[in-house]
Amino acid sequence: MRPIITLLTDFGSQDYFVAAMKGVILSQDPEARIVDITHEIPPQDIHTAAFTLLACYKDFPAGTIHVAVVDPGVGSARNAIVIESGERFFVGPDNGIFSWICEREGKWRAIRLTNPKFFREQVSATFHGRDIFAPVAAALSNHTSLAEFGPEIVEIVQLESLTTTEVNGEIEARIIHIDRFGNCLTNLNRASVDENSFAFGAKLVVGNHEITSFQRFFAAAKREELFCVFGSAGFLEIAARNISAAETLNAKLGERVTLTLNRS
Amino acid sequence: MRPIITLLTDFGSQDYFVAAMKGVILSQDPEARIVDITHEIPPQDIHTAAFTLLACYKDFPAGTIHVAVVDPGVGSARNAIVIESGERFFVGPDNGIFSWICEREGKWRAIRLTNPKFFREQVSATFHGRDIFAPVAAALSNHTSLAEFGPEIVEIVQLESLTTTEVNGEIEARIIHIDRFGNCLTNLNRASVDENSFAFGAKLVVGNHEITSFQRFFAAAKREELFCVFGSAGFLEIAARNISAAETLNAKLGERVTLTLNRS
Amino acid sequence: MRPIITLLTDFGSQDYFVAAMKGVILSQDPEARIVDITHEIPPQDIHTAAFTLLACYKDFPAGTIHVAVVDPGVGSARNAIVIESGERFFVGPDNGIFSWICEREGKWRAIRLTNPKFFREQVSATFHGRDIFAPVAAALSNHTSLAEFGPEIVEIVQLESLTTTEVNGEIEARIIHIDRFGNCLTNLNRASVDENSFAFGAKLVVGNHEITSFQRFFAAAKREELFCVFGSAGFLEIAARNISAAETLNAKLGERVTLTLNRS
Repeated sequence: MRPIITLLTDFGSQDYFVAAMKGVILSQDPEARIVDITHEIPPQDIHTAAFTLLACYKDFPAGTIHVAVVDPGVGSARNAIVIESGERFFVGPDNGIFSWICEREGKWRAIRLTNPKFFREQVSATFHGRDIFAPVAAALSNHTSLAEFGPEIVEIVQLESLTTTEVNGEIEARIIHIDRFGNCLTNLNRASVDENSFAFGAKLVVGNHEITSFQRFFAAAKREELFCVFGSAGFLEIAARNISAAETLNAKLGERVTLTLNRS
Repeated sequence: MRPIITLLTDFGSQDYFVAAMKGVILSQDPEARIVDITHEIPPQDIHTAAFTLLACYKDFPAGTIHVAVVDPGVGSARNAIVIESGERFFVGPDNGIFSWICEREGKWRAIRLTNPKFFREQVSATFHGRDIFAPVAAALSNHTSLAEFGPEIVEIVQLESLTTTEVNGEIEARIIHIDRFGNCLTNLNRASVDENSFAFGAKLVVGNHEITSFQRFFAAAKREELFCVFGSAGFLEIAARNISAAETLNAKLGERVTLTLNRS
Repeated sequence: MRPIITLLTDFGSQDYFVAAMKGVILSQDPEARIVDITHEIPPQDIHTAAFTLLACYKDFPAGTIHVAVVDPGVGSARNAIVIESGERFFVGPDNGIFSWICEREGKWRAIRLTNPKFFREQVSATFHGRDIFAPVAAALSNHTSLAEFGPEIVEIVQLESLTTTEVNGEIEARIIHIDRFGNCLTNLNRASVDENSFAFGAKLVVGNHEITSFQRFFAAAKREELFCVFGSAGFLEIAARNISAAETLNAKLGERVTLTLNRS
């Protein structure tokens, strides 16, 4: 039984792009098993793509091949790569989309995709999802070894790190994702702050809002109250019940937030 | 060959939530077979979720496991349940989402999900779709018997019934769903009204509109005419060709409608 | 192993319609293998459906069964058909949705679906996707021969041809698709114009805009510049980097464009 191939793109669900990738994979390996992560990443938004994959790659079985195509540099000199990390494979452009996973896993091995034997017969300059990444994923699923795809590389493009540091009881962090419900996820996790910190006077400052309430789950909050909660991806989020926290805060992706701990 | 597992949620297609559920299912049972019903239920809209599942659960093979997660009470004291009814299984929160199916089938058996052996190792307070319902579905798909999941319960949360009663030739009904094309589905079915009633003077009153036309299919109607039609889910709908009936009527989900039969 | 069945509709992802089709197929053939192309075709837009299928049908393996249901005439006298062409099968209404594929392949064989043995037990007047096309696809996937479905027909409904002709160095063409990124695809292909034509003075006129720039890929263009590029479906597109070409041009589907070659 084949490993799972997942697809994550900014192609939307309206066009033929995703179907073309699936057709290419299934033409090459009729037994391939494909699962969509999402195709609704905002166009060219590498950060949202990187976050979305980070939040779920580990829920899939070891051996899974994650293909991620948010690729504003398609056709240019940017590298196409496959990475092995955390017992899973990652196929896509070298633009930072996998860097948070490599940061978390610590160990990784990256290969530049240069061997045209694994590409579609004609490679367009605009659609490497279909012409390079899909056939490479199918070959990988069908037991091709990494070394056959091209030379190893020792550096990959990195997005701004997700780690935070505390200075004098203050942690500078940022909003790394805003979800469908308007919850604002920060890069703070249980290593920096715990469930009891807020009871002891911690506060999270976003623009001119101070959030001092913490809840374990959504239904525990008062209606329309802004509160902090640890979300299912392990990050501290700013949420509100029945309304959008992002709208209330007028928050933007990448916006800086400050967590002040009370260590008195 | 495994039974089908279907997924219906309000998670949207943009985030990692649905992928995480699929990953958990496939990690636990690599042979699981997953089909999406929809993930575009309006956030927290239990009624739309209940209608959508009611309209298609029976099209899937006997033995299918339908997982439905529209769960505003996640983390609170609401029960997590599995129901067996009509030769199919239903996994989700006990908030009424399956009550119309139980009403239609008449017979059902419900179990409260309490056995943590079938849950994800760490159960978050915010994402039972991934941490409880997905692994329970995978266990069910892999031949776990209902009794292992927890104790039987004799009552489940019920939504307002879909049945209607006639009083003096008038039937009070309501709009139970508005679809993508703007068609307004009522809870009237062929037991209350038949295709010929309108030819004999029946009329359907919605706000200050009276609908007296009935058509067998859309292309039979005049452009922009409001008419009644029996939809594919077996309910009487108010429709219009080339325009949205819901917009024309300014109709809302749950809005009352009155069918006046002419029995003279 | 079964051939792939693909589904393309205008049903959206919000309702039960697509799930009902999948349930019917899987009830009839538990081993069926279903892949979505898209369900986000604008309601009743046969041209967009025809383009989308044209752009990817050939990426799927030989033997694939493509089901396309954009069907404003459902319930009326329009035919339901299955076509064999280019080593693939096409199931849907006879309204032109497959005509560009037949035009490209040259050879095709069409059958009118009249044998009720292959239909759902009760055929509604509003949902042939579930009641006719899905069960026919499942039967086809399960090795039913074409002749069993009904009589052969020699004409099918045709959309306006995609071919263009040059008169005195001018080619009248049109916009046949606008994608999610706002790129405007024309029916010009490499047979009418090549990558070097623009360097030799060719220009594409759309409304009161003249486009004289050609790029091999998106990242090669200047920000917000309008340019021509050959897209991944083989058609010449008008694109712009970081903005929507369609919005800049105020372009509409079907709008005429003129390519002037410089043969001096």
